[in-house]
Amino acid sequence: MSTDPTGKGLLLKADAIADTFREEIVQALKPLPNPPKLVGILATSAEPSRFYAEFTKKQCESLGFNFVLKEIGAALDPESGEGYGVEEAIMEANEDDTVDGIMVYYPIFGNQQDHYLQQVVSPLKDVEGLHFAFHYNLYHNIRYIKPTSLLAQPKIPSAEEIPVAIKDQPPPGTVKSILPCTPLAIVKCLEHAGVYNRILPYGDRAYGRVVTVINRSEVVGRPLAALLANDGARVFSVDIDSIQEYTKRPSSSTTQNRFNRHHVAHPSHLTLEECLAISDVVISAVPSTNYKVKTEFLRQGCVCLNIASEKNFEKDVRDKASIYLPSVGKVTIMMLLRNL
Amino acid sequence: MSTDPTGKGLLLKADAIADTFREEIVQALKPLPNPPKLVGILATSAEPSRFYAEFTKKQCESLGFNFVLKEIGAALDPESGEGYGVEEAIMEANEDDTVDGIMVYYPIFGNQQDHYLQQVVSPLKDVEGLHFAFHYNLYHNIRYIKPTSLLAQPKIPSAEEIPVAIKDQPPPGTVKSILPCTPLAIVKCLEHAGVYNRILPYGDRAYGRVVTVINRSEVVGRPLAALLANDGARVFSVDIDSIQEYTKRPSSSTTQNRFNRHHVAHPSHLTLEECLAISDVVISAVPSTNYKVKTEFLRQGCVCLNIASEKNFEKDVRDKASIYLPSVGKVTIMMLLRNL
Repeated sequence: MSTDPTGKGLLLKADAIADTFREEIVQALKPLPNPPKLVGILATSAEPSRFYAEFTKKQCESLGFNFVLKEIGAALDPESGEGYGVEEAIMEANEDDTVDGIMVYYPIFGNQQDHYLQQVVSPLKDVEGLHFAFHYNLYHNIRYIKPTSLLAQPKIPSAEEIPVAIKDQPPPGTVKSILPCTPLAIVKCLEHAGVYNRILPYGDRAYGRVVTVINRSEVVGRPLAALLANDGARVFSVDIDSIQEYTKRPSSSTTQNRFNRHHVAHPSHLTLEECLAISDVVISAVPSTNYKVKTEFLRQGCVCLNIASEKNFEKDVRDKASIYLPSVGKVTIMMLLRNL
Repeated sequence: MSTDPTGKGLLLKADAIADTFREEIVQALKPLPNPPKLVGILATSAEPSRFYAEFTKKQCESLGFNFVLKEIGAALDPESGEGYGVEEAIMEANEDDTVDGIMVYYPIFGNQQDHYLQQVVSPLKDVEGLHFAFHYNLYHNIRYIKPTSLLAQPKIPSAEEIPVAIKDQPPPGTVKSILPCTPLAIVKCLEHAGVYNRILPYGDRAYGRVVTVINRSEVVGRPLAALLANDGARVFSVDIDSIQEYTKRPSSSTTQNRFNRHHVAHPSHLTLEECLAISDVVISAVPSTNYKVKTEFLRQGCVCLNIASEKNFEKDVRDKASIYLPSVGKVTIMMLLRNL
């Protein structure tokens, strides 16, 4: 990792970051009498889903997990239609005591109906962290939970009800609330890239960083912006129609004092160009081949992450960026297996 | 309601149907010591939402409910931004023991984030029936529930665990599961229009009817198609990319025998034109001014319902339809207050 003779920033590949978690996972599996069993539910004929299912299987087997692929609907028989039987397959896996984790290969029916299915997966087996309970905990900065709380409707907790970590370890009777895989993988990449400052206390290690997150979908953009703000960063959440600022340290008093301390969102009057000019980190997740973050607007020395399948940064991004991560996919699967 | 001298079908207005529920609700409120309290949460500056909030207030007051409008975000102060503080307002209403029902004026942030908010509303106060638990019960044809089940993750029930109605009344210890307002209002309109056959047993009164539902959104189209199929109808669920058939009486055996008896979906090889030719009822919910169901394809004497804000039927629809309902809006609000 010597300085590039051309003066360009560092190109950081996801593989290298994923490998750092490989050994951790292998060590954690060793004391277990049986390897955990992950069921992958494939209900469509979509090639990318089948490819990802096979990739999961390979990763699982190389690490020592037991992976079972459950094919149903058009994945099993083209005549039976896309997605048919998927809800029943999820419920059977929920109730099968030999199954430790469930992974469903989306998209199946599209956003709304897929969101319904994500609530059908038991939160006790949801390795992807897509259930409402995990999003709720993320948004409210609730990091440690009693497992039974996942099965209840959320309440406003009183201050003494919120478990507090002791030296980064979950307090007795609690576990870490699972985080949605993709936002978690991005945080791990940012830790690896030195954005998180280890000298600061756990839960506040992004304090002092300004981050722009482009796209505010409920799948990646909004949970990611909330997660970074809950970790102390000042975050600009940019979407087509508006720019919001997320912060845990609002300048004005708010109504959140009855709640666990977490980020608040308020409208920003800055333009995207103004946000980029002051951002230490720029993360883009726009599902469009035409969308590009203009290199000329980036702050010299910033860290850039591309989360979309498409390339959201221009070819010359490393002329300005000190570090550029073109994808996080391989880290995401490691987080999923870590959750399991 | 004499035969139109021009030979046109009957134009059925929602007002007349809504009025039939007015007296039922007034009578039900009489024995209560205090009128139930509904909190309406308005978080945006959108005119249609404010209009609807004022309409709810007027309806509530005319029937004897206590309606409190909670304004927040841009509804209170244009500077504070659209939707700001709405999640906190919902949670405070959840925990306020004097509040019996909660209604949130959507859209606020758009589909995905609004869906998140719908899970934050306690299912015990969700008069609109938008919580996952109600959709789950609807899809699985679970009509009577123990209230505590709303707060738990769904399980595959054993046959003896499913409460069975006695003479249309909930079995002891159970209540009717709330149905999402709009699909419920449509069923009530179809009952009024004579589509449901009262001589058949409760829960199967649409048996023998063929219904086409155009649009398969998770908000109206899919729950409506499932509800009608669970009531015995043969339903074609039509969306841009596919046509599915929903039925409670599948010709082939399926994997659903461990589940409560409910509709199954399978792909249909019919075209929309072929579906319309055999449909007793056509329901359209396409949010587009350009979309029109062609009158020439309708079966002579069918019943047509327009659910969209736009007119999805052609002007001459009553040349073919025996009954045409141009909207169900006013029935929807009655269902909401009935749920309360």
